[in-house]
Amino acid sequence: MKLYNYFRSSASFRVRIALELKGLPYDYVPVHLAKGEHLQPHYAAVSPTRLVPTLVNDAQERLGQSMAIIEYLDEVYPQPALLPTDAVGRAQVRALAQLVACEIHPLNNLRVLKYLVREIGVSEDAKNSWYRHWVRVGLEAFEAELAQLPPSTYCWGETPTLADCCLVPQIFNGQRFGADFSGLPRTMAAFEACMQLPAFQKAQPSSCPDNEP
Amino acid sequence: MKLYNYFRSSASFRVRIALELKGLPYDYVPVHLAKGEHLQPHYAAVSPTRLVPTLVNDAQERLGQSMAIIEYLDEVYPQPALLPTDAVGRAQVRALAQLVACEIHPLNNLRVLKYLVREIGVSEDAKNSWYRHWVRVGLEAFEAELAQLPPSTYCWGETPTLADCCLVPQIFNGQRFGADFSGLPRTMAAFEACMQLPAFQKAQPSSCPDNEP
Repeated sequence: MKLYNYFRSSASFRVRIALELKGLPYDYVPVHLAKGEHLQPHYAAVSPTRLVPTLVNDAQERLGQSMAIIEYLDEVYPQPALLPTDAVGRAQVRALAQLVACEIHPLNNLRVLKYLVREIGVSEDAKNSWYRHWVRVGLEAFEAELAQLPPSTYCWGETPTLADCCLVPQIFNGQRFGADFSGLPRTMAAFEACMQLPAFQKAQPSSCPDNEP
Repeated sequence: MKLYNYFRSSASFRVRIALELKGLPYDYVPVHLAKGEHLQPHYAAVSPTRLVPTLVNDAQERLGQSMAIIEYLDEVYPQPALLPTDAVGRAQVRALAQLVACEIHPLNNLRVLKYLVREIGVSEDAKNSWYRHWVRVGLEAFEAELAQLPPSTYCWGETPTLADCCLVPQIFNGQRFGADFSGLPRTMAAFEACMQLPAFQKAQPSSCPDNEP
């Protein structure tokens, strides 16, 4: 398999975690988002949406959107499972993942921050306030959801799930912008537990071949 | 089952479509987002995230996030299926749904538009440009993905899927803001095909008990 991705992209990081958790080897193909490589013709041939990541499977089929890719991996390579076996548990894990992927991350990715600065003309301060606002509001909702669930080591249960694949990159991303993580005990405990695991360590930006310190 | 929702909420509309496609009866509980009812204590007791929609199933379990709810319904009430049977097809449908739910809608929902106006002080024009920009960029990506798939009546294949549940509310939403839908032949053909079906008609905002013309 081949993963077109970028060390700093949260959505790429999610998929790298899933691949590592399942012990699946893959070719790492860097696409430098900050340099606009995703907008070059050679990447358009890989991904018509120009978005990162793209997974190309062994049958040369091209898959986009990080949560869809992770669900695909979980269906084709079921062990270790990244979703619970019962329908309500699966819905809870997917909802947690979507709280990050639909409520926080879309507001904070590179192209949105660029639009705020270039098209709307917001100051660096206003951009950072925007960033921190949505991370904070989103993680408070995430924490409120976790507080309704039974005690657990990870976001849901005693093994990492799709929810952890989404949470951890969001925390990394937030750390770069100085987001406020106080008063989020279960969220941060799940993050810390994940970061003890080699799979999360191997997937993190600083372990990537295209990492820029 | 009980669905806490709002006639104009795109995420609510997605779930209403899925419920109608499956012929599942439900109690419609309106939560008036524009009046801030989702921030009142009685709704916090239903949904700790304060987000709409929330589905409460017959076992009184509470489920959030529209795509997670639809996947739950598809697992518990499998007919008619809202996802293909093969893993790649499922990944393609989920990716289309996520193109709407992770790339377009989060930038355009009410709380984000409010933040732009109240906190950043953008003009009505700049707000509308922001809105139309992300709808356009997102739908162009959606169209580019559809163009890679075999010809189909709906977004994917000959029956409506999760992708259609997400696309149709986004088109309705875009229509309210005068978004540009030109040059999106497959996207708009799928939309038109969906709107021929009673399930989509019954789920649309103008059919809701809390509709305000």
